[in-house]
Amino acid sequence: MATSRPGLEAWLAARRREIEETLSGRLPAEADDPGRLVESMRYSLLAPGKRLRPILALAAAEATAGGGHHVSAPTDGAVRIAAAAVELIHCYSLIHDDLPAMDDDDFRRGKPSNHKVFGEATAILAGDALLTLAFEWIAEAAVTSGRPEAFGRAALALARGAGVAGMVRGQARDLGEAAPSDLDALERLHGEKTAALFQAAVEVGAAASGASSEVIAQIGRFGHLYGVAFQHADDLDDGDHPDHASRAMDRLRELVEEARTSLSRLPHPEHASLLGDLADALLSGARRG
Amino acid sequence: MATSRPGLEAWLAARRREIEETLSGRLPAEADDPGRLVESMRYSLLAPGKRLRPILALAAAEATAGGGHHVSAPTDGAVRIAAAAVELIHCYSLIHDDLPAMDDDDFRRGKPSNHKVFGEATAILAGDALLTLAFEWIAEAAVTSGRPEAFGRAALALARGAGVAGMVRGQARDLGEAAPSDLDALERLHGEKTAALFQAAVEVGAAASGASSEVIAQIGRFGHLYGVAFQHADDLDDGDHPDHASRAMDRLRELVEEARTSLSRLPHPEHASLLGDLADALLSGARRG
Repeated sequence: MATSRPGLEAWLAARRREIEETLSGRLPAEADDPGRLVESMRYSLLAPGKRLRPILALAAAEATAGGGHHVSAPTDGAVRIAAAAVELIHCYSLIHDDLPAMDDDDFRRGKPSNHKVFGEATAILAGDALLTLAFEWIAEAAVTSGRPEAFGRAALALARGAGVAGMVRGQARDLGEAAPSDLDALERLHGEKTAALFQAAVEVGAAASGASSEVIAQIGRFGHLYGVAFQHADDLDDGDHPDHASRAMDRLRELVEEARTSLSRLPHPEHASLLGDLADALLSGARRG
Repeated sequence: MATSRPGLEAWLAARRREIEETLSGRLPAEADDPGRLVESMRYSLLAPGKRLRPILALAAAEATAGGGHHVSAPTDGAVRIAAAAVELIHCYSLIHDDLPAMDDDDFRRGKPSNHKVFGEATAILAGDALLTLAFEWIAEAAVTSGRPEAFGRAALALARGAGVAGMVRGQARDLGEAAPSDLDALERLHGEKTAALFQAAVEVGAAASGASSEVIAQIGRFGHLYGVAFQHADDLDDGDHPDHASRAMDRLRELVEEARTSLSRLPHPEHASLLGDLADALLSGARRG
């Protein structure tokens, strides 16, 4: 496992390739495609992306597998499928967030957004199908891996992070409330809308690789801190929430420091250097996505 | 276990009460409810309904538990939660189907539809949250019941029935294609849009009560036949697809007969009389919902 920057780049590229292959290979590709449903799912999911959430899941799996706390050896394929499922959730959330009734965005990653190409009905259904597919993949891993409890924990973490107490709640808050008036309110929004899924990503990776509830919770703390820091960095890049920009830069540094500290509490912090490097990369502003 | 009509009514009422209590008791109810997300979830989910899908799940659990093929004794509470999760999926699909971009229905069960009360954005998010919550509940049952494989199978059945190969595909077909030109095409649509979730419901019940893959598949066949028959009966009541009405009445009788026959192949058909009675009730037209 590499910790230097060139090594990190190579590791990231290899993991991204694995995730791309998993997504492309496992997604349905049917000749009979009523309503262009599958085509629209593939359009959004296979658009170029950094795949940061599944990569964090794989880094978390590496950080926790092989340690004294894990229950059994990971099946690499099943862990990869669980990590890729996190990207399905991220992708569905982008499709639904772009809808006219929500953020009404015509473009996503430089391409027309899903509903601009396929219409609103298909975009809503594509999101529903991707969301459902995420849990299908994890359930399949649970049944076929011989480690159903590990993947049950992974599914639970993903559902909690993505749902009414996490990401969906954040989107409801963003649409339904006035802009955050202070930094605490901003970080509560970031915590729900962005960090809940990052937290779930690392929890999924740890759970799928057999980590105990205690270790899952420890690495989940890292994911939360990483996620809030990520959103501060993203806002600073985009000029969002300018009233809070000066404090946000300070908070970004503090959160990355806290995230690094949280890794030191893992049973085998020496296996978590990739996660530490990924957190550091938020400060450079060059490796966000 | 009752097989006579009065007994069936009492059984149905008791199961419906259990499901209502599970839904109401487990659904979040937070004072801080940004965007009225939780309020909108409760509005749709707790509206009066027949709860037919979770009831079928519970009947399937009774039909398969206690037989020679089941893996371990069911935890009643966990089976009930898995059954209730099927209703979360049904409810989310109604909210999304009613949206202006989909079927554009202003009323549902005699009340204004979700988006008419809470707006489109919240309705989309409420559907997303209910869909996610279904898998959260089953994952929780997997982790806490001590029978993670059984609930992994339940989650897999539910995801397959609800997703891109099942219910969502049916809705995409209904919106994206011309009306079915013959009875085969109509039954393919019914199979995806309606029967896939009924099939999943009985599979969830059987899986959660510890049935083998073989028994799950056998009872799933019943669920498919029941679901297509249900939709024929529903169309006949509502005057939908009038071109196919005369054949649909014949097919309804044939499908109920086939569904009854499929039950005779279960390891313990004598435990499946409730499912048989539920299928018969489709012929009377009085017990549909």
